[in-house]
Amino acid sequence: MQNIAYYNGKVGPIEEMVVPMNDRACYFGDGVYDATCVVNHVPMAFDDHIDRIYRSAKLIDIDIPMEKAEMKKLLQGLCDQVEGDVLFLYWQVTRGVGMRNHPYSGAGDKPSLWAFVRPSKMRDPFGVYKCITVEDKRFFYCNIKTINLLPAVMANQKATAAGCDEAIFHRGDRVTECSHSNVHILKDGVLKTAPCDELILPGITRKHILAICRAKGIPVVEEPFTLQEMMEADEVFFSSSSALTCRIGEIDGKPVGLKDEKTFALIRDGYQEEMKKECGLA
Amino acid sequence: MQNIAYYNGKVGPIEEMVVPMNDRACYFGDGVYDATCVVNHVPMAFDDHIDRIYRSAKLIDIDIPMEKAEMKKLLQGLCDQVEGDVLFLYWQVTRGVGMRNHPYSGAGDKPSLWAFVRPSKMRDPFGVYKCITVEDKRFFYCNIKTINLLPAVMANQKATAAGCDEAIFHRGDRVTECSHSNVHILKDGVLKTAPCDELILPGITRKHILAICRAKGIPVVEEPFTLQEMMEADEVFFSSSSALTCRIGEIDGKPVGLKDEKTFALIRDGYQEEMKKECGLA
Repeated sequence: MQNIAYYNGKVGPIEEMVVPMNDRACYFGDGVYDATCVVNHVPMAFDDHIDRIYRSAKLIDIDIPMEKAEMKKLLQGLCDQVEGDVLFLYWQVTRGVGMRNHPYSGAGDKPSLWAFVRPSKMRDPFGVYKCITVEDKRFFYCNIKTINLLPAVMANQKATAAGCDEAIFHRGDRVTECSHSNVHILKDGVLKTAPCDELILPGITRKHILAICRAKGIPVVEEPFTLQEMMEADEVFFSSSSALTCRIGEIDGKPVGLKDEKTFALIRDGYQEEMKKECGLA
Repeated sequence: MQNIAYYNGKVGPIEEMVVPMNDRACYFGDGVYDATCVVNHVPMAFDDHIDRIYRSAKLIDIDIPMEKAEMKKLLQGLCDQVEGDVLFLYWQVTRGVGMRNHPYSGAGDKPSLWAFVRPSKMRDPFGVYKCITVEDKRFFYCNIKTINLLPAVMANQKATAAGCDEAIFHRGDRVTECSHSNVHILKDGVLKTAPCDELILPGITRKHILAICRAKGIPVVEEPFTLQEMMEADEVFFSSSSALTCRIGEIDGKPVGLKDEKTFALIRDGYQEEMKKECGLA
């Protein structure tokens, strides 16, 4: 089929799927999500994503009433039903259905599982992308992948309206991450990326990039960097599970990076190879 | 009927109402809401609430495709169908239905209107309430009544679990507001309340309280106050459209306030009278 949606056991086309109005997603954004690209019907870094949604859920006190293996099997089953070489798998766990009320300790609450799979496209790994910067006014729970995403929506819309590909957030002078990806710089052959604190999501692609750097002898510094450091870096790139690694050539209309393709290519190609291997394409 | 829900023209019992999975409320919390108590089938301060949801929507770039008078008529119609002396009217406007994607400039997006009305109860205006304090880690859009409410949910749950009625947020030493109400102090006959910046919601009950203070000769200072000032105040109380004015006698297990009932009573009774008049009970 063309696409598929799932909600608490119900299955159907995404466009026709309905959910109870009283699911706490609808009033509070009371849930967490994860997503990955699916190549050759293999969800990339699947175990990492499964682990992360359980961790996110736990951080907001949601106890997922399902084993990881069962969730994985269910999601794989959805992926298997959709046609296409490249798909996008999205799923979220919300605190469940109940009459709107802030506290959630009422008896009978049971988390809801939502999912969908639809065709997708990879970004060109050899492309050069444009970004804008946006003041980061988000909450201090950015380490949790929640569906409270309004500031990310607003920033991403601003980037789109400016003809750009991503919005890079900064708190004052400090660069944090993008609206739905992490951002990294290369300077003098060293990769610098923000540390995993409450200001950024611990990206799974980020984690794999750091492992590739270590394997290939690229020194890694996990420390905050400033807007100025970013504008003066040899390379700037963003990464996510759907974007993989995207090299940035322009920020706020000013040229940046593109001065150390050799080091960037080690990372980009390393991740492309990893993906191909995982998805049975190499 | 016992209760009623509305979604984009569909009407039914709240428990049976379903909405499209692709409404952007579900993935992003991409919407704004408002709510008020309905006494004798009259929604309290209705015009203020209608004005506020249009203002909130505008602040996140949602253009509500309906005149204020039409929205008011529609919501009043829902209130009229539900039995009960005291009801709770809730409504939200979300950015509409579409395949999940951060940017929203796609053609065809049309905001969704959601609403429900259900029986409610007034808090005892003569009660004494207990609160806890919680570090305020929310975003810097607290002036907009969005449905990105997860930090408020977590704080309110913490209060409930502690046997308390509300959670009072503070950013460092500065008290901001509560999880779903504003908080005020009285000291030496002067009312002090946080100014309307991006850290608090401009409460409608707050606005009416300030008008009552001015009418009754109680000086008002709209300035930030600290945790220590709150703990040493003569009176501390929270206010909201459903809670009206609630006097606080204990915070984090320590006794507070309850030292200037005369001034507090001027405010409490002033608002009770206003409500009765508006709802045709006096």
